Amino acid sequence: MPHSEPRKYAIIGAGALGAYYGALLQRAGLPVHFLFNSDFAHVRSRGLRIDSKYGNFHLPKVHAYDDPRQMPPCDVVILALKTTQNHLLPTFLPPVTAPDGLVLVLQNGLGMEEMAAAVVGPRRVMGGLCFLCSNRIGPGHIHHLDYGPITLGDFTPDQTPAGITPRMAAIGEDFTRAGVKITLSEDLLLARWQKLVWNVPFNGLSVALDTTTDRIVGLPATRKLAADLMLEVAAGAAACGRTLDPEFLEKMMTNTDQMVAYRPSMKLDFDAGRPMELQAMYANPILAAAARGVQLPRMTMLLQQLQFMEARQSGNLK
Amino acid sequence: MPHSEPRKYAIIGAGALGAYYGALLQRAGLPVHFLFNSDFAHVRSRGLRIDSKYGNFHLPKVHAYDDPRQMPPCDVVILALKTTQNHLLPTFLPPVTAPDGLVLVLQNGLGMEEMAAAVVGPRRVMGGLCFLCSNRIGPGHIHHLDYGPITLGDFTPDQTPAGITPRMAAIGEDFTRAGVKITLSEDLLLARWQKLVWNVPFNGLSVALDTTTDRIVGLPATRKLAADLMLEVAAGAAACGRTLDPEFLEKMMTNTDQMVAYRPSMKLDFDAGRPMELQAMYANPILAAAARGVQLPRMTMLLQQLQFMEARQSGNLK
Repeated sequence: MPHSEPRKYAIIGAGALGAYYGALLQRAGLPVHFLFNSDFAHVRSRGLRIDSKYGNFHLPKVHAYDDPRQMPPCDVVILALKTTQNHLLPTFLPPVTAPDGLVLVLQNGLGMEEMAAAVVGPRRVMGGLCFLCSNRIGPGHIHHLDYGPITLGDFTPDQTPAGITPRMAAIGEDFTRAGVKITLSEDLLLARWQKLVWNVPFNGLSVALDTTTDRIVGLPATRKLAADLMLEVAAGAAACGRTLDPEFLEKMMTNTDQMVAYRPSMKLDFDAGRPMELQAMYANPILAAAARGVQLPRMTMLLQQLQFMEARQSGNLK
Repeated sequence: MPHSEPRKYAIIGAGALGAYYGALLQRAGLPVHFLFNSDFAHVRSRGLRIDSKYGNFHLPKVHAYDDPRQMPPCDVVILALKTTQNHLLPTFLPPVTAPDGLVLVLQNGLGMEEMAAAVVGPRRVMGGLCFLCSNRIGPGHIHHLDYGPITLGDFTPDQTPAGITPRMAAIGEDFTRAGVKITLSEDLLLARWQKLVWNVPFNGLSVALDTTTDRIVGLPATRKLAADLMLEVAAGAAACGRTLDPEFLEKMMTNTDQMVAYRPSMKLDFDAGRPMELQAMYANPILAAAARGVQLPRMTMLLQQLQFMEARQSGNLK
């Protein structure tokens, strides 16, 4: 992907995460094309507004779309939909992904690169893991609360480590120029499992127990349960040939001790009546481990409980 | 325990269960002494009233006590407290258990005979499993909704099957005379694990998911979870040398299909703000299996979740 012109970016799903990173890239001078859902009309006329702990800013004019077929082919297509929307990928990705472009999957959980690869081909996919707290607080209005680093990892269809590829480094430079701290990972699958170490216990338990992270780690019984769930994530990673150090698990726990009372994204989704990212965050890791003969009973039980709660919320209990 | 006179009964904990069986025994002509808590004054002046699907009746005069030291030594001391009250056994049992009498433990879960044996000695303990739906609906007023059979099993300190002992048969005859269907079990520990097959999934999940049994078995995800929990009970039983047939587990599931929307006793306790029988129903079976090297991860996770909910309800989350 050699370029003399700046790389052209698309944001598929310009919500709390996609609109934030897209706005940073545009502010740094890069061409960015945003696919909006309900915010389209507002943003087309009024632009994007970012309230951030690193300084507020307003982009009065952005390239806003509500139909991917109107968008130009782009070099980097940032996939920032909730994973529960990924049935839309066959419609959304092909028109906007340039022949020598790629889809950068900034989604939670496991198996989302594979879904993108099934649409655009395995050579046109890269993964990214975002460590970001931001909310959409109104039409075209994003509140960035904290953090924001991204770990990039290139995708290989056989899940072997891709190493540090030139295209990763190039995209990383764009983000760095936009003020985003970038880490390049040689092993996307390892990075994905590492992120699950925190996501699996705290997303699901905050919903199942209707609580915040501080209370989960504050009671010995549920702190132990969170630790046991982390160990199951490590067992799943090991089944997939990736090693998670006990020190890393311990660090995720003590980091949580130092956080304020926090509602993880799945809790925010559930409380707002949105579908939860159960497939990406629970079902796919469980299936990946099961395919290699490893059972993850606590994660399975948590998934079953969350499926019950989602069925009740959506009126699907008999 | 040869007798020419009728056996003298004590009811320790004359609530929905204890007062019901005690009233039946008294109505059949047996001498019964009831230890009440809050209902003492009412019952002493107004007696006991039983509304039952098998016919209502009223006992205007009962031997009511609020202090076990006032009670006579009895041949059969029916322990019908909630297991969460068993710290009171050293106070309650010695005065009322005759030297050649015994304590009949009509409590839920595992390990309660051992607690009684620690107080009165292992030769003065028998177990009983009640299959009863009854509620206390007012002072001295019990509503018997359905069922009522008791399975008796004699206690041995080394957990070997006691067989059918003469004293079991004799006590069984008293209950039969009182209209209670009695089964004599040769193996108390097997009967205890069998009862856990239903109790473990449906008590805990009804609290954790804030729901009724019909909805748990009605959704495939939680029906599978209930089945998985039953399999863990079977694994715990196997660790203790007892075999639970897959057909028995399947029967417990299909029985539940045929029940109305039902709140198990633990759900009733939780909704009323009472402590849950977590030690008897979860912690002790988990410990019994762990002592033999068998882990029960789903039961452990359910216990941890219930401990969180109980801590929150009682204001003990930090």
